[in-house]
Parts: sequence; C-alpha cells; structure tokens
Amino acid sequence: VARILNGGLSPSDIAHLLESSPPRQRALLWNLVEKDLEGEVLQYLSDDIRGYFLSQLNAQELADIIEDFESDDLADLLQQLPDTVIQEVLDTMDEQDRQRVEEVLSYPEDTAGGLMNTDTITVRPDISIDVVLRYLRLHRSLPPMTDSLIVVSRRDEFIGILPITRILVSSPTATVREVMDTDIEPVPVTLSDTKVATLFERYDLISAPVVNDQGRLLGRITIDDVVDVIREDADHSLMSMAGLDEDEDTFAPVWKTTRRRAVWLGINLLTAFIASAVIGLFEATISKVVALAVLMPIVASMGGIAGSQTLTLVIRGMAVGQISGANVSWLLNREFMVGALNGLFWAVVVASAAAAWFQDMLIGGIIAAALVINLIAAAFVGTVLPLFLKSRNIDPALAGSVILTTVTDVVGFMAFLGLATFFYS
Amino acid sequence: VARILNGGLSPSDIAHLLESSPPRQRALLWNLVEKDLEGEVLQYLSDDIRGYFLSQLNAQELADIIEDFESDDLADLLQQLPDTVIQEVLDTMDEQDRQRVEEVLSYPEDTAGGLMNTDTITVRPDISIDVVLRYLRLHRSLPPMTDSLIVVSRRDEFIGILPITRILVSSPTATVREVMDTDIEPVPVTLSDTKVATLFERYDLISAPVVNDQGRLLGRITIDDVVDVIREDADHSLMSMAGLDEDEDTFAPVWKTTRRRAVWLGINLLTAFIASAVIGLFEATISKVVALAVLMPIVASMGGIAGSQTLTLVIRGMAVGQISGANVSWLLNREFMVGALNGLFWAVVVASAAAAWFQDMLIGGIIAAALVINLIAAAFVGTVLPLFLKSRNIDPALAGSVILTTVTDVVGFMAFLGLATFFYS
Ligand SMILES: [Mg+2]
Ligand SMILES: [Mg+2]
Ligand SMILES: [Mg+2]
Ligand SMILES: [Mg+2]
Ligand SMILES: [Mg+2]
Ligand SMILES: [Mg+2]
Ligand SMILES: [Mg+2]
Ligand SMILES: [Mg+2]
Ligand SMILES: [Mg+2]
Ligand SMILES: [Mg+2]
Ligand SMILES: [Mg+2]
Ligand SMILES: [Mg+2]
Ligand SMILES: [Mg+2]
Repeated sequence: VARILNGGLSPSDIAHLLESSPPRQRALLWNLVEKDLEGEVLQYLSDDIRGYFLSQLNAQELADIIEDFESDDLADLLQQLPDTVIQEVLDTMDEQDRQRVEEVLSYPEDTAGGLMNTDTITVRPDISIDVVLRYLRLHRSLPPMTDSLIVVSRRDEFIGILPITRILVSSPTATVREVMDTDIEPVPVTLSDTKVATLFERYDLISAPVVNDQGRLLGRITIDDVVDVIREDADHSLMSMAGLDEDEDTFAPVWKTTRRRAVWLGINLLTAFIASAVIGLFEATISKVVALAVLMPIVASMGGIAGSQTLTLVIRGMAVGQISGANVSWLLNREFMVGALNGLFWAVVVASAAAAWFQDMLIGGIIAAALVINLIAAAFVGTVLPLFLKSRNIDPALAGSVILTTVTDVVGFMAFLGLATFFYS
Repeated sequence: VARILNGGLSPSDIAHLLESSPPRQRALLWNLVEKDLEGEVLQYLSDDIRGYFLSQLNAQELADIIEDFESDDLADLLQQLPDTVIQEVLDTMDEQDRQRVEEVLSYPEDTAGGLMNTDTITVRPDISIDVVLRYLRLHRSLPPMTDSLIVVSRRDEFIGILPITRILVSSPTATVREVMDTDIEPVPVTLSDTKVATLFERYDLISAPVVNDQGRLLGRITIDDVVDVIREDADHSLMSMAGLDEDEDTFAPVWKTTRRRAVWLGINLLTAFIASAVIGLFEATISKVVALAVLMPIVASMGGIAGSQTLTLVIRGMAVGQISGANVSWLLNREFMVGALNGLFWAVVVASAAAAWFQDMLIGGIIAAALVINLIAAAFVGTVLPLFLKSRNIDPALAGSVILTTVTDVVGFMAFLGLATFFYS
C-alpha cells in the first residue's frame, strides 16, 4: 500500500483518498505518506481535515513541509494555525519569501488578496519580443498557469498583459507595447472571491492580475484556485440549506457530528414549538372536528414546498447576480401570480378529496381557502425573505428555509384552524 | 442604450443582462443587439433562454450567426434545434467544418465528446522546437486556451503534450520528443462530463486531449467549458432538491412557471395525503387526547430535519466521489449513532417541555420514544436512500427529499400516535 500511495498516486489523489476514509484508516494512510509528499497532500485537503493533521506537526516539521509552497497556498495553510506558530514558521523563512506571504496574509481569505499568488513574471513595455523570449529562456520553467506575462511600468504599475501565445505569433522585432493587451481590467485586491469567480467565469480567464488602489501590481489569481472558490460557494449553498458547513468532513467522528447537528435540530425544535403553540390555540375546535388534525399537515406542507421553490430560485438568482432592485418587483409579482394560480388549482383538488373523504363540504371549502392563503404567503416570503436577510448580512441559504417553513407552518395552521373555528362554532 | 449595449459590453455581459431581465425588457434588449454580436451572445445564454431566441431565427439567419463558432459551441447550439433545421444549417457549411461538427454531435452532450473542441494544434515528436516556433509563427493567433500543443503520431494517435511554456524555456535545437510530457492520461471520449470536471479540478488542468478507444486524437476540452459543467452540476444539486431545473429561467413568465411548479406540488400533495391517511388511522385516539394533535408536528419535523442533514451530506459525498461500498457501512453506523444520540438528547428536552405543558408525564414519555425512533429511521433512510436511488439511476437530489420526508412523516406519526393509542386505551 505504501508503495502504491507514494509511487503511483499524485498528491491530489492521496488527498482524495484521505478525505474518503473513516478516521482510523485515515490516520493509518497518513502515516504511510512520505515526508516529502506531505506538504503537497496538505494543500489539497479540505480545511477541516488539514487542520487536524496540521495540529499534529511542530514548527520545525511545518517549516520543512512548506518549503516549496506558492505564496497563496502557504497563506491558506498558515491561516489555520495559532498565531504563535505562524510567527515561528515565518521566522524560519528568508526575508523575501516572508514578505510575500505576509502580503497575502494581510488580506482576508475570501478576497482577491487572499487568493492571489505573488510570483508573477513581469516585463516592461519598451523591450522587444526577442528580448522577452531570451529572458524567458533563462528560466528553467515558468510558474504553473502562466498564460500571460504582466506588463508593468518602472514603478510596478499595471499597464497590460502579454499573452504567451501572442509572443509566439508576433514578430521578434516588435515591442511589447505594440502587441500587448491593454483592455484588460485588473482585479482590485479587495474584491470578494465570489466576484472574482464571476469575472473568471464570464470572461473565460486563466489568470488575472491583482492591483492595489494605486494600480500597483501585487500578484495574480489563477483559474485552479478560482475553480476551488466556485466549488466551495456551490457547496456552501447546498450544505447551508441543511444547516451543514461546506467544510464538513464526510467522515467526521460520531461525537463531533452529534454536537454540530444538535445545534441545527435545536433551532428547528424552537420553530416546531411555535407551530405547536399555534395549533394549541385551537384545541377546542380540533376536539370537536378531528378531521382538522388529519388534514392540517397538508396545508402546512404544501406551503413549505411552494415557498422552498421560490426561495431556492431567488437564492440562486442572487448568487449569480441576476436579481437586483430593478427586477425584484417583477419577480414578486410573478411569484404572487404563480402562488395564487397554483393555490387555486390545488385547492380545488384538495377540497374535493377532503370533502369526499369526510363527507363534509364545509371542510373542503375551508382547506381550499387556507391553501390559497398559504401559497400566496409562501410566494411572498420566499421572494422577500432572502433579499431581506442578505441586506442584513445574514446568509439566506442558512437561515432562509428555517424561517420560511416557520412562516408557512404558522400561516397554514392559523388560516386552516382559524377559519374552521369561525365556521364550526 | 443600443450604443452602450453594442459598444461597451462584452457578449457575455450582454447575455447576463438578458438573463437578468423580465420577458418584455428581454425582447426589447435582444432587438437592440447588433446582428454580428448575436451569435456570440447566444453562446453565453442558458439553454432555456437560448432556445427561445433560436426558435425565432430561420435557417439562413442561423447560418450567418454561427459562422465563427467553435465546434463545441456550435454542437451545443445545434442540439437545441429541430432535426430538419440542423440539417439545413449543416448544408450551408463547408465540408471540413461540417465533418467536425458532426463528430461532436455524434457524442452525447454530457460526455467528453460533447464538450470537446475539434480545433487542436498538433505536432510530430521528431521535429525540433525551432521548427515548432516557426510553424506557430505562421498563425495569426492561436485558439483560445491553448496552453499546450498535442503531440501525435503519423496516424493521429495521441503521444503526449508539449506545454507552450516548455517551448519557451527549451533549447531551439531540442526535439519535441525530448521535452514533451508523456505522463498525461488523455480523456476517453465517452467519459461523463462530471468525471471530466473532477479530472480538471484534481489535476489543475487548463486543457486536456480527448481520444477514442483506439487512442486516436479527436479534440481537446478546455477549462472554460469545464467551469460551466461544474456550475451546472452544482446548480443541479441545489435546484433539484426543490424540484426545479438548473436551466430554469429566473424570469420565466407566469404561465410557464405555474405549470412547472404544479407538477412538483402535485407529487408532494400525494405524499402529504399519505401522511394524512396515517393520522386518519388514529382519529379516535386524537379525539380523546387533543394534545396529540398539538405535538405531532414536532415529531415529524425533527425527523425531516435530521434526515435532510444526512441526505445532503451523502449526496454531496457521492457527488465528489468520496462515498463507495468500502466506507458506506462505517457511514451508516456513524449516522445511526448520531441519530440515536441526538434522538435521546432532544427526546429529554421535548419530553420535559411536553409533560410540563400538558401536565401529563405519559405524553412526555410517548413523544420521547417517538422522537428516538424517528431520528434513527431518518438516519437510516438519509444514508441508504440516495445510494439506492443512484444504483437505480434515479437522481437522488430530485427524488431524495420527497421520499425522505414521506418516510419521516409516516414513521413519526405512526410511532407517536401508535404508542399513544396503546398507552391511552
Ligand atoms: Mg473554507
Ligand atoms: Mg468564499
Ligand atoms: Mg487563500
Ligand atoms: Mg465562461
Ligand atoms: Mg495557486
Ligand atoms: Mg491551489
Ligand atoms: Mg448546455
Ligand atoms: Mg452534466
Ligand atoms: Mg457540448
Ligand atoms: Mg484543483
Ligand atoms: Mg469551448
Ligand atoms: Mg464555452
Ligand atoms: Mg442543461
């Protein structure tokens, strides 16, 4: 196994194998990984699992492992360590490397600054392509994902980019200035990683230069790290809706998992008690007409389903930047109409079924009215809630569905049992 | 507006603007887009919206629009047209282009073959780097995303790749054979697009060669299209969980939206009626102890929440390839333990609250037992169901949560009301 692990598999494959293993096998496998592969494997592990392995290394071991790291990956890893260990590790590095990492570390992890790599190949605009070619040939290899050189002024200000393929098809006597692209917008260092990902997706970029607000070049962002941001953001939307963290280790041990899940169950228990309290208001009516207890989950659940559809659509639309102040009223109106139409349609179906089941026309009429009310409420809350939460800086994917189902439960039970109390007394 | 649209914005920006507009504005904006930009804008639109605009063009207009398309984009677009129109459009193309597109069209859209682009720059292994450089200089530009040339034999068999950056740092007298990479695995043309995306993510690729099962080079896949696959798959998981399609137009008109949503509501109505039927079995008990009606949603909803957490975790784990036969029993065991522990913990809390609320120790004991039973059932179904559905080729993200909540509703109501019937009679 050890030979297969260290010979046949790439570091990213080993990382995947570790992520796919329960705790005991994971520890065994990790011990089999050769010392000089450990660093690379760590780079590919998810935060949760990497943090665990990191906590078992001392500062000297860490310093050995990170020797060949790129500045962005190093910053990612250091961010998971306690401050004292960060300092110890930085002390083992040479001056230039340390400055580069400290630069990256000085920006929040989820911004362009946290994503960027500081090792860029830059050229001046006034040299010839031939000189560029000779300069490149001095390198034994170019940094991975180098699709273009960055053209900067004497004071390191960003001027434009020179795609590698352009170098190859240009006349050797042309100057950089003549063949470079200047219609590229550099990425501001403070831009959020999600917006960086949108830029890469929309303009099909492989790498992009990062500048500070004086226009000075700080580094560049590459597509491989952007792909990780896209995956992470997508995972976040999916996992948050179920109250899970996107970094969650699939094979986390029992006790850790139990504690994390307990919190979410507790929050939902509160909302369930709210729904129960609403039902409790109508105990007298229910004891007279037990059919109400049988039918009431239908009203609540149809509202929850309809609301989740609207909520998911709006959360996705916000994530890809389609929804803004300009079109939200159109959207609200559309959802309102859809809620009303589907409410009316299914009200007829449910009312007929209920009336036939309990031989009671009145209960059919009541459930029909309650359904229409709840589906309209669901449309309204599903549209407005995520926008409201976002404006308050609360994650709509995390809080949205809890609040939504609380509302559809309360409105559903209130409408159905309230109308019943009115008509049956 | 027309000037801004056609002058200042890139085609992908225009596509985004169209996707972010309600139907009427969208039609207005589309009319303002200049004829020679239309093709590029169409490439960036999502299937739903593109299909609508395509249906308004005749074969000649189509032929004009697609002139400069790459083969993969062209295939995507043609796949949305009726067969007769496809044939008309193919007839307008020259022999070579037609063959290329027909090649891509012959593979399913969601495979490597459907993703690949047939315009590759290939070189033979026995020529020198200097010859490669002179050959490249004959081009006015290289295809976008060209990070490497593909080395092939006389019979077009894949041999290796020659990274562009390698060309730049190698001695001009070296041969391609001496500096090329041969440890690259080409992508089989039948590989699914999701697996292609995993390869690109894991090995940080920019482009990858595609071969048939004889090893003959067919084309190459580029990261920009892979990013779209990643986004689409992620969107699919998120949207399917709410019964929505990932291609769903955020601003689809009322009537279309109503019909699509109605189907999902109908399916959920069926499951709600199943839950009601279970409650109906216990009408007699409920009419004696109305507190049961008040408390029963708590049991069902806690089961649904716990089950969704397990289900989401397993669906994500399957999507990233972490879950296999080897670790599923560990996972089931872990979820079982977590369900039991959280069941016991929250059972104590809910039992105390219920007993205090209704001044009835018995109802506390009954709800506690029902909660533990339902959380264990939820853990079991949440783990096994997605694996079972996948083995039957049913999308777990789409069908999973409907079936799961049906089970947790039925088990929850059955356990709670069943135990109550036993103890209160
Ligand atoms: Mg993270
Ligand atoms: Mg982020
Ligand atoms: Mg970082
Ligand atoms: Mg793109
Ligand atoms: Mg990087
Ligand atoms: Mg990376
Ligand atoms: Mg498509
Ligand atoms: Mg697909
Ligand atoms: Mg395609
Ligand atoms: Mg990667
Ligand atoms: Mg393409
Ligand atoms: Mg594309
Ligand atoms: Mg599609």
